[in-house]
Amino acid sequence: MKLSGKPKTLIPKGVATFLPEGAARRRAIERVILDLFSQWGYQEVITPLFEYLDVFSLGVGENILDRAYKFVDRATGRIMVLRPDVTPQIARIAATLLGDQPRPLRLCYSANVFRHEEEHAGREREIFQVGGELIGISDVEADAEIISLAIEILKKVGLKSFKVSLGQMAYTRGILQSFRSSPAFFQEVLHSVGKKEVSQLEALLRKGKVGLKKRLQIIALLDLFGGEEVFKKASLLTDYPPCRIALKRLKAVYKILKSAGYQDDLLIDLGEVRGFGYYTGTIFEIFSDGVGSELGGGGRYDQLLEKFGAPTPSTGFALHIERIQKALEFTAGRDRDYSSADFLLLHSPAGAEGASALSRQLRQHGFRVVCKTRLKEGQGWTVEKLASFVSDARRQQIKKILVLENGSARGRIRSVDVRSGVEQKVNLKEVMAQGPPRRV
Amino acid sequence: MKLSGKPKTLIPKGVATFLPEGAARRRAIERVILDLFSQWGYQEVITPLFEYLDVFSLGVGENILDRAYKFVDRATGRIMVLRPDVTPQIARIAATLLGDQPRPLRLCYSANVFRHEEEHAGREREIFQVGGELIGISDVEADAEIISLAIEILKKVGLKSFKVSLGQMAYTRGILQSFRSSPAFFQEVLHSVGKKEVSQLEALLRKGKVGLKKRLQIIALLDLFGGEEVFKKASLLTDYPPCRIALKRLKAVYKILKSAGYQDDLLIDLGEVRGFGYYTGTIFEIFSDGVGSELGGGGRYDQLLEKFGAPTPSTGFALHIERIQKALEFTAGRDRDYSSADFLLLHSPAGAEGASALSRQLRQHGFRVVCKTRLKEGQGWTVEKLASFVSDARRQQIKKILVLENGSARGRIRSVDVRSGVEQKVNLKEVMAQGPPRRV
Repeated sequence: MKLSGKPKTLIPKGVATFLPEGAARRRAIERVILDLFSQWGYQEVITPLFEYLDVFSLGVGENILDRAYKFVDRATGRIMVLRPDVTPQIARIAATLLGDQPRPLRLCYSANVFRHEEEHAGREREIFQVGGELIGISDVEADAEIISLAIEILKKVGLKSFKVSLGQMAYTRGILQSFRSSPAFFQEVLHSVGKKEVSQLEALLRKGKVGLKKRLQIIALLDLFGGEEVFKKASLLTDYPPCRIALKRLKAVYKILKSAGYQDDLLIDLGEVRGFGYYTGTIFEIFSDGVGSELGGGGRYDQLLEKFGAPTPSTGFALHIERIQKALEFTAGRDRDYSSADFLLLHSPAGAEGASALSRQLRQHGFRVVCKTRLKEGQGWTVEKLASFVSDARRQQIKKILVLENGSARGRIRSVDVRSGVEQKVNLKEVMAQGPPRRV
Repeated sequence: MKLSGKPKTLIPKGVATFLPEGAARRRAIERVILDLFSQWGYQEVITPLFEYLDVFSLGVGENILDRAYKFVDRATGRIMVLRPDVTPQIARIAATLLGDQPRPLRLCYSANVFRHEEEHAGREREIFQVGGELIGISDVEADAEIISLAIEILKKVGLKSFKVSLGQMAYTRGILQSFRSSPAFFQEVLHSVGKKEVSQLEALLRKGKVGLKKRLQIIALLDLFGGEEVFKKASLLTDYPPCRIALKRLKAVYKILKSAGYQDDLLIDLGEVRGFGYYTGTIFEIFSDGVGSELGGGGRYDQLLEKFGAPTPSTGFALHIERIQKALEFTAGRDRDYSSADFLLLHSPAGAEGASALSRQLRQHGFRVVCKTRLKEGQGWTVEKLASFVSDARRQQIKKILVLENGSARGRIRSVDVRSGVEQKVNLKEVMAQGPPRRV
């Protein structure tokens, strides 16, 4: 069997293919983020791409598991799952392999996760995430640290405009918990609150025979959205103790973030519901113009590690690298350097050794270099020939051509600027002393 | 269900878990390699983690497909395969998505691949690879470039002692092809040659009723191993034209590598057989002391891209990051800096803002910093308290503790070296001017 042309179904929808420019952007963003994580004391860990469903499922909600890719392990007959989320894996590792390490643990990761999406939804199924987890601190300072770090990351990668919306799962659950219901109905209502469609929510609550007063209270959640004034409205809505405690914590987190100067980046949204099942306290999501879905989010998950045998208060977040790329393109445009190489060294067959030595020198100075024999031995060297090399180099996004006349790089040598086609003589010692231009 | 203790089967065997130290080593090696690829003009691409089996299988041999993880796609009912190899994916992308780009293409990747291994084999199932592909050049210079780059990478990551063994699939196949056999028997013989067990190979050839002369010729392949003298022995073994051409090419590659100064790193092994099915010419494998399996390898695959509709001569290689890590540990020991942070800032509750501002400054200077409130408001501050912070910090591999007495970082402040426990006063302006120590 051979393939000709490009059949539509050559690769599955939603899986990752990054060509050089996109891959370079992704890698540059990842480096900035991992470096910042390191500067905040977060150490990278790597988790398995797949693991046993029964172990993994301890940590996550049904809705995530439903969308996970699964297969049967040939060796054991057990069901494997391609990780749809990294946090439960980090929780497992923190509780077991790193169980004897002193707390707090600050861990981070860069990993792809997999979630089944309907074909028509047009969403990614292979998602590149970076994230951090702060394990072993129950104080509000930990929530503030995680949110501050997420904000600093987005500023560092160059995102100018974004909003962090703060929620509180314990408050929101508290409002719902104060009436009796089946767990299934509870989940349905929670999901509906998250969707923020008033009429749908109201219909659901009527169907569930929720009393008028309670119904209005739940629907009022959808209005607890905005600036600092929301705290007042939220405290007027209920005096149920778990809600009051939750609100007090969220206010303390907000206060720390405000004093750190992040006020303009913040929103409050007490109708926010993240769909992972394990959140127990302060949560947050990040949005930016030009991208329909959240760039990332996270929150406190104080009951996740105990599923793996080591109860530990924890908080964390994840960011979606591709959506950050999209947001950056939307706000900043594509003004970066995506050249493939700084120099193409053209040499004669006899000059191969000289070219090889020169390319080694240039690379040691940080330049990106490719070599090419400019002629078969004995062939003539013409202006047309050079022009064709320049035209190829332009399409390959190479910046400059260096012509090694006798295989020697001494003195001033011919250099062609590929974009303009202008030729000049350059002194390579000077070029090397300057070093390569900064990229990406 | 809850887990207590560490059940043996918590995670599948052979999948990747890297704790902070190992993950930091892996990341450092990956960065060095990707930077070097970039300096050689290789641009990174990212390929899907899984794709349709029927498309993927165009590119690889049966033995790799047999060991691949497969599952059924919920949306289409087609069989998916977790990539067991990246080269066929790059070939597909080069032939299709990058089909209109000028040749040569220089592409590289860092990716995990998946191969089923028997439980008792103790080998990894999730393998972290980096690799490069040079697409569109049939000249021996391309083979030499790929091998040179692999050597330069290993030198750059710090590997002192390794051997690159050069083979030639066209020569080795030629020796086998000059007798008539079924494709299945041919593959069996090829596989047996690769295993280098003379008695097993001889038994197989007898079973296949291969004549004495031919039998001896095939068995002689196993002796074509050593230095330059092997070329002479190999040319005496056959005058079958495809073998002579193949040998001439390999000699030309060897000559270029020798002139580049790599002679001491090289071996010739014409009984070498790489098990991927797509190799057609010069191939190579890399070995190092202390690691039982090859660190990586590659070679020429001139017929792979035509499976995807665009016949193109190509060559490439892949390296196995974990085995490189093992080889480095074996030869260099573990003398690197795996601290988690440079500074722990201890501050009073009232000093949180000052600590936050200071940590920002230190991070801007490249330091890794974590903050901690040293007391609850009103609690006393004792020597014992400080000692317990030092002991925790030692276990967390933090290098220094800075004690912010009044939340202020002006003048000289108290600093404790965590390893020695020695206290001194430091001027933070001087510390920042020096910048952080180089790591890993």
